[in-house]
Amino acid sequence: MMIYITRKEHFNAAHRMYREEWSAEKNAEVFGKCANPNWHGHNYDLFVTIKGEITHATGYLMDLKDLKVIINDYVIEALDHKNINLDVPFMKGKMASTELLCIEIFRQLKDPIEAHEGVILHAVKLYETENNFAEYFGN
Amino acid sequence: MMIYITRKEHFNAAHRMYREEWSAEKNAEVFGKCANPNWHGHNYDLFVTIKGEITHATGYLMDLKDLKVIINDYVIEALDHKNINLDVPFMKGKMASTELLCIEIFRQLKDPIEAHEGVILHAVKLYETENNFAEYFGN
Amino acid sequence: MMIYITRKEHFNAAHRMYREEWSAEKNAEVFGKCANPNWHGHNYDLFVTIKGEITHATGYLMDLKDLKVIINDYVIEALDHKNINLDVPFMKGKMASTELLCIEIFRQLKDPIEAHEGVILHAVKLYETENNFAEYFGN
Amino acid sequence: MMIYITRKEHFNAAHRMYREEWSAEKNAEVFGKCANPNWHGHNYDLFVTIKGEITHATGYLMDLKDLKVIINDYVIEALDHKNINLDVPFMKGKMASTELLCIEIFRQLKDPIEAHEGVILHAVKLYETENNFAEYFGN
Amino acid sequence: MMIYITRKEHFNAAHRMYREEWSAEKNAEVFGKCANPNWHGHNYDLFVTIKGEITHATGYLMDLKDLKVIINDYVIEALDHKNINLDVPFMKGKMASTELLCIEIFRQLKDPIEAHEGVILHAVKLYETENNFAEYFGN
Amino acid sequence: MMIYITRKEHFNAAHRMYREEWSAEKNAEVFGKCANPNWHGHNYDLFVTIKGEITHATGYLMDLKDLKVIINDYVIEALDHKNINLDVPFMKGKMASTELLCIEIFRQLKDPIEAHEGVILHAVKLYETENNFAEYFGN
Repeated sequence: MMIYITRKEHFNAAHRMYREEWSAEKNAEVFGKCANPNWHGHNYDLFVTIKGEITHATGYLMDLKDLKVIINDYVIEALDHKNINLDVPFMKGKMASTELLCIEIFRQLKDPIEAHEGVILHAVKLYETENNFAEYFGN
Repeated sequence: MMIYITRKEHFNAAHRMYREEWSAEKNAEVFGKCANPNWHGHNYDLFVTIKGEITHATGYLMDLKDLKVIINDYVIEALDHKNINLDVPFMKGKMASTELLCIEIFRQLKDPIEAHEGVILHAVKLYETENNFAEYFGN
Repeated sequence: MMIYITRKEHFNAAHRMYREEWSAEKNAEVFGKCANPNWHGHNYDLFVTIKGEITHATGYLMDLKDLKVIINDYVIEALDHKNINLDVPFMKGKMASTELLCIEIFRQLKDPIEAHEGVILHAVKLYETENNFAEYFGN
Repeated sequence: MMIYITRKEHFNAAHRMYREEWSAEKNAEVFGKCANPNWHGHNYDLFVTIKGEITHATGYLMDLKDLKVIINDYVIEALDHKNINLDVPFMKGKMASTELLCIEIFRQLKDPIEAHEGVILHAVKLYETENNFAEYFGN
Repeated sequence: MMIYITRKEHFNAAHRMYREEWSAEKNAEVFGKCANPNWHGHNYDLFVTIKGEITHATGYLMDLKDLKVIINDYVIEALDHKNINLDVPFMKGKMASTELLCIEIFRQLKDPIEAHEGVILHAVKLYETENNFAEYFGN
Repeated sequence: MMIYITRKEHFNAAHRMYREEWSAEKNAEVFGKCANPNWHGHNYDLFVTIKGEITHATGYLMDLKDLKVIINDYVIEALDHKNINLDVPFMKGKMASTELLCIEIFRQLKDPIEAHEGVILHAVKLYETENNFAEYFGN
């Protein structure tokens, strides 16, 4: 019996979309107001889904307090009230898009979550606004 | 690396559930108050999910401004503040159920979205109320 | 000690904005796509707020099951899956705007609610979409 | 053409996490404040997803009024305003976790839903809070 | 210039509605399924609104981290994962209704919040479910 | 008959909390992670409430399309995808707190809204996150 559990967390961050090797004009043309050199920001909502078999003794797949600690230690600490382009080690040299941020969050979480026997990281879903979100399933 | 991106849009529309070849009594019996000859309506929430590989230069799967334009041109324009039974070319001759509307929206969007290289329309999800929604994955 | 209690209900309905004595052109000019002769519709969310002193024996201002019955009998029955312009006795001869609908709902509810000793109808709040709502306080 | 339809319902219930054969200390250590011997509770949101082909005559996969009746008769009646550990026959002898409750709800619903020709129970999703939910797909 | 600031917190708790001096039959008659002797529970959402003048140096009415600490120390600690009838000192001997809980939360918060110069507790709003909430303004 | 109408809009922006005349240490001590020199950001939700008498011909207090244009021209254009500390003329020299931003938005909107005969700006409500919001009523 495979059960899926999802935990929601959130963080607030600044970012901008631009390529250093492009002119200001080209960045504005491609990325529109998302290229603002003075940054803008979002309240990001993050949904982390794990899957596996239930542990008989507890009735849990995994204690959600443990999952919360992992998400906070590996992701929220690095992102909350930060600048995604400037402050976040795992986003250095990458475009600060929802797509790439979603993939990198998955990578940060995979090993610490799967260190718990029988637990698999299934998906990361990242809302940039209530109208846009990305999902990554690890492949 | 396959990433999934979802864009939410909405529209308001009137409709009713009925079959012309049935009597008013039979329509009322089968469809209840949804058969009201004077129509009723909903605020529909529409979630369009695309998938594919990220474009290196932008960090995007697809510019969401482009996706928004496609959804508006092919779907929202035809449905917003309209009567689904009477005003919508792609619903002519079909029951105005959430199920069939969801499938027809998918069909309207498939070609214009997939005209973007490397982008695949994955799913359309349509909320009729906050308690009911349909999903269609194209097969 | 004055306590305020709010109960949320909802209904789905069709309507259009138009004046019979105006031409189709003038209606379209003033009301835009809301004037569509074939109607459109909404999921309306209704918040009814009452106020008064708490009854000692129950700890309630009023049993919310009773409030729910009043709202259903006097408002939801008349509006749910209906056409506001054509089907609703208390809206006959009135513009089907959120403003006027909100006021008329208040008037429908005032007497049956205030038949409960010590309970006052404080406000009616009516959402037409998640982005627009009207409030009426009875004066 | 496979269409998916989801219906949302909800119930309020009390529960606690504990194993009878463990001491109070061990229960508190493993389950934290969820082990409170005097119980705590939640507003649970339940999403039931069915799939299948659309019936030509109605445009429906299944009449949602029928689905609502099944969910109420087999699940909500048993759980709403109840104690999950003490009052619910299908949870007797099981841990009252979201995971196990989600699986048991799936089992309660499978036969009565699939008694409708061409309808398959696809998934049950159960929110314990807005930050935590479980999903079960039947295997 | 009077500004109003609201902070949202939440807690999960069990309760039941009953009067000890009434028979089980009378409790069931008056309170319906809310009288279940084995308890039920809710996810409560709490909105605390303060008002006052803005402090020039910070641009804040009050640091919301301080407000959060007060709400947690005086209210959430006492209520979260607790039984409102049995575990909560400030509810002893009172009916566990949303109305009375809302008033008692206001009383718990008034002095510690108003110990901050220039800050007034304006209102407490308490959601028992997404369809029902109480508000108290202190008089 | 005084009716209240509210329109919701939103914008995304970056900001930080700091005083130039304070050291980095003092800013960090007072404002915590909100003082991050590299900025952070939010999805702001803005609710603008107007009040007045209904216009007989339309049934409206004010055409919400006109209200939307005013909010966009005077507020959203200036704030969306911007840095509140650096890019916004009406916030120059002010702390970028939700409180002060809420008051300045009210001031931007008052004259253009009240240029419509019979319409009064009643309140501005500004959400910084789903857990925190400010309200200003103009005095």
